[in-house]
Amino acid sequence: MYKLSEITSILNIDFNAQDIDIDIDAIHTLSKATPSNLTFFNSVKYLKDLSSTKAGAILIEERYIKYLPSSTIALITDEPYLKLALASKLFSHKISTKTNRSKIGKGCDIDSSVVFGEDVEIGSNVIILAGVYIGDGVKIGDNTLIYPNVTLYHNSLIGSDCIIHSGAVIGSDGYGFAHTREGKHIKIYQNGNVVIENNIEIGANCSIDRGIFDSTVISEGTKLDNAVHIAHNCIVGENSLLAGQVGLAGSTTTGKNIVMGGQSASAGHLHIGDFSIIAGKSGVTKNLEGKKTYAGFPAIEHKLWLKIQAKISRLIK
Amino acid sequence: MYKLSEITSILNIDFNAQDIDIDIDAIHTLSKATPSNLTFFNSVKYLKDLSSTKAGAILIEERYIKYLPSSTIALITDEPYLKLALASKLFSHKISTKTNRSKIGKGCDIDSSVVFGEDVEIGSNVIILAGVYIGDGVKIGDNTLIYPNVTLYHNSLIGSDCIIHSGAVIGSDGYGFAHTREGKHIKIYQNGNVVIENNIEIGANCSIDRGIFDSTVISEGTKLDNAVHIAHNCIVGENSLLAGQVGLAGSTTTGKNIVMGGQSASAGHLHIGDFSIIAGKSGVTKNLEGKKTYAGFPAIEHKLWLKIQAKISRLIK
Amino acid sequence: MYKLSEITSILNIDFNAQDIDIDIDAIHTLSKATPSNLTFFNSVKYLKDLSSTKAGAILIEERYIKYLPSSTIALITDEPYLKLALASKLFSHKISTKTNRSKIGKGCDIDSSVVFGEDVEIGSNVIILAGVYIGDGVKIGDNTLIYPNVTLYHNSLIGSDCIIHSGAVIGSDGYGFAHTREGKHIKIYQNGNVVIENNIEIGANCSIDRGIFDSTVISEGTKLDNAVHIAHNCIVGENSLLAGQVGLAGSTTTGKNIVMGGQSASAGHLHIGDFSIIAGKSGVTKNLEGKKTYAGFPAIEHKLWLKIQAKISRLIK
Repeated sequence: MYKLSEITSILNIDFNAQDIDIDIDAIHTLSKATPSNLTFFNSVKYLKDLSSTKAGAILIEERYIKYLPSSTIALITDEPYLKLALASKLFSHKISTKTNRSKIGKGCDIDSSVVFGEDVEIGSNVIILAGVYIGDGVKIGDNTLIYPNVTLYHNSLIGSDCIIHSGAVIGSDGYGFAHTREGKHIKIYQNGNVVIENNIEIGANCSIDRGIFDSTVISEGTKLDNAVHIAHNCIVGENSLLAGQVGLAGSTTTGKNIVMGGQSASAGHLHIGDFSIIAGKSGVTKNLEGKKTYAGFPAIEHKLWLKIQAKISRLIK
Repeated sequence: MYKLSEITSILNIDFNAQDIDIDIDAIHTLSKATPSNLTFFNSVKYLKDLSSTKAGAILIEERYIKYLPSSTIALITDEPYLKLALASKLFSHKISTKTNRSKIGKGCDIDSSVVFGEDVEIGSNVIILAGVYIGDGVKIGDNTLIYPNVTLYHNSLIGSDCIIHSGAVIGSDGYGFAHTREGKHIKIYQNGNVVIENNIEIGANCSIDRGIFDSTVISEGTKLDNAVHIAHNCIVGENSLLAGQVGLAGSTTTGKNIVMGGQSASAGHLHIGDFSIIAGKSGVTKNLEGKKTYAGFPAIEHKLWLKIQAKISRLIK
Repeated sequence: MYKLSEITSILNIDFNAQDIDIDIDAIHTLSKATPSNLTFFNSVKYLKDLSSTKAGAILIEERYIKYLPSSTIALITDEPYLKLALASKLFSHKISTKTNRSKIGKGCDIDSSVVFGEDVEIGSNVIILAGVYIGDGVKIGDNTLIYPNVTLYHNSLIGSDCIIHSGAVIGSDGYGFAHTREGKHIKIYQNGNVVIENNIEIGANCSIDRGIFDSTVISEGTKLDNAVHIAHNCIVGENSLLAGQVGLAGSTTTGKNIVMGGQSASAGHLHIGDFSIIAGKSGVTKNLEGKKTYAGFPAIEHKLWLKIQAKISRLIK
């Protein structure tokens, strides 16, 4: 929790004496920020969200303040995204080796080498093998099995009846940076978390990044093969199947029961509809409506892709 | 070991009072099942194997029982693959943190943080660094070097003169599921193992899944670069070279001395012939006869691929 | 340190009694070897470097010795690369579980499960979480944060203000082998290291291989997303961004401020110029001059790639 005047002082932004020095407890996006949140405006794409934001304060260029509701205090800057990055550090989790007594349900079998952060809660009949790290505030449901050398970053929520294979990393920082004019990259601290719902299997050496402000979510019944990479703020729909070495870029969401073949991937900020089947090695570059099979890069309907392959084969005759 | 009547009771299948209540010790495929094994028939592709199976019992649709030998007891179900999945759990390894005294040869240097399951056997002059987990029944030959934070799942067999780099996971579950009519995925427990023969090097963060019933095999003299993913039941031939981020889908086999370039992959259930060279980023989609260089996706002979590239270049002129 | 005559004896090469039995302390390339180094000549591509080498001794075929300076002792062999591989083992680091008291700066927070090799030096205000392994001779700067289950191989140099995410492996062996006439692969021991400069972030499950003789270098301000694979002897320029599952093959170098999209890759031994932007899934196969956007496989200028995609779309009409 910071006073707004503390934040502006750290960010080197003028604090207008007429403004109320409110308490800020987190940063969030325009559409999700509450009156105790700081937000930012860095793209005209979100102009429609500006007038309706409920944020207590906003990092914004002067020319856009006319669109703001009166309830949101404007913090004027030429570089709102860079200032956001600097502010994000203020709200980041304090990483340490501290531990305290975890709440552990009955019937658990947890290796003595497992390391706990603070305020961990584990359900009943959970098995956790050697070398697992369970960060601060992690919660794990019942009957979940965690193989050796898994890392669960702070505030990860793991459901019941899950299996997490060795080398998987849940909750690592999303890949988010603001850029200075000199080409340096300033970390946007990733203050969200990862939610793994019930009945999920996560393959060996998968990595699932935490959300920036919100959660990255793997929905109930979904199964990830090995070495799958899920970027921040993705939401993978229920009962989906992601084969080996699949990659999802940031903020992409999927419907339920999608299938992605090995080494396929999706660009960020798009939606893959229910029951989409995406062939191995494909690359999705735009929204897919679902209930179809797609292939190629850029991914198109599979039957079109087959036609193109036939044409290309004829080219060489 | 289960009585057949116990299995049918758990699977909610009728047990025919005329049948003998045999002991079942494992599940296996039609062609490999023995008289004490349960098998399943879920694809007409394997119809030819049906009449010659030696299985003690089979999960099968009623319409196919006429092809069965009289020595195999039919367990009639509309969903043999789903019932197989449920049955596989019965024969799965009991995962726990239990340990007992391992057999360790002379001249070994094993870090005190290494965690052992039960009944581990290690040869002589083996070096195992910190944070390695060695599951139940794992055997390791002589002179092998295992770098930190490697995970060897239960029953993995590691040869002599091997080097396994950090983050590698050997023996994680293959990616196998039966599917309910409602679109849920039911785990097929992976009751096979991984065999790493002699003189093999496995790169950092590789993952090699255990076989369903059999072994996934990496044959003598083969070298895997980093982040290679080998799915269940693959057999990689001897003296092969798999470069960084290569992926092999399930049940694919290769001859000897194949080379796969970085980020190349193969679909499952096919064979890559001896001395095949597969260019980086290629995707193999059918059997390759070998002794040739292949490229592209779908992978074709490299010289053809070059012709197509030339044609495509001309397109834009 | 070996006497030259010891090396020739081990390699089964004739040592000429007229030659001085110099001390050899390392192996290096033709252009970088010093008078106390052994080098090798295995490709006419490097003929221009032969006459100017400063190496004390060289593994070389007889027909090329006429190009040698008189200061370099010729060790004549038909298989210089294979002999190099055998010699490389002599100079390899002795891997063991030995440890001694590390130098650790003030204000550090290091988990008690962290395992140290010998002669480790850590700066001040460093945080190292559970299950991390820090090999012999590793040096870490100030304010660096290392998440759980990271492995730092011997002699890795990690800068200040770095963040290394879980499962990352720094300094694993590069993928280098000489090949016998029978098709076996003989390990070239990787006696270089990895240098991670200041202000670098390395994603979960990345693997960065050590150089053969020299260093693999990640330059200041660069950020790697998850599951990135960097092969031996790469030099990634400063302030670069490598997205998830990117792969760089051996000895490729980049300028500063390059961007590589998810699942893109580069072949080895080439240069990617400053400010290159490489689209996701692309594959770089030749030098890129930089300050442009590239796409496709083989990667070409993005605007050309778009034209080809348009042509291909028209094919199916």
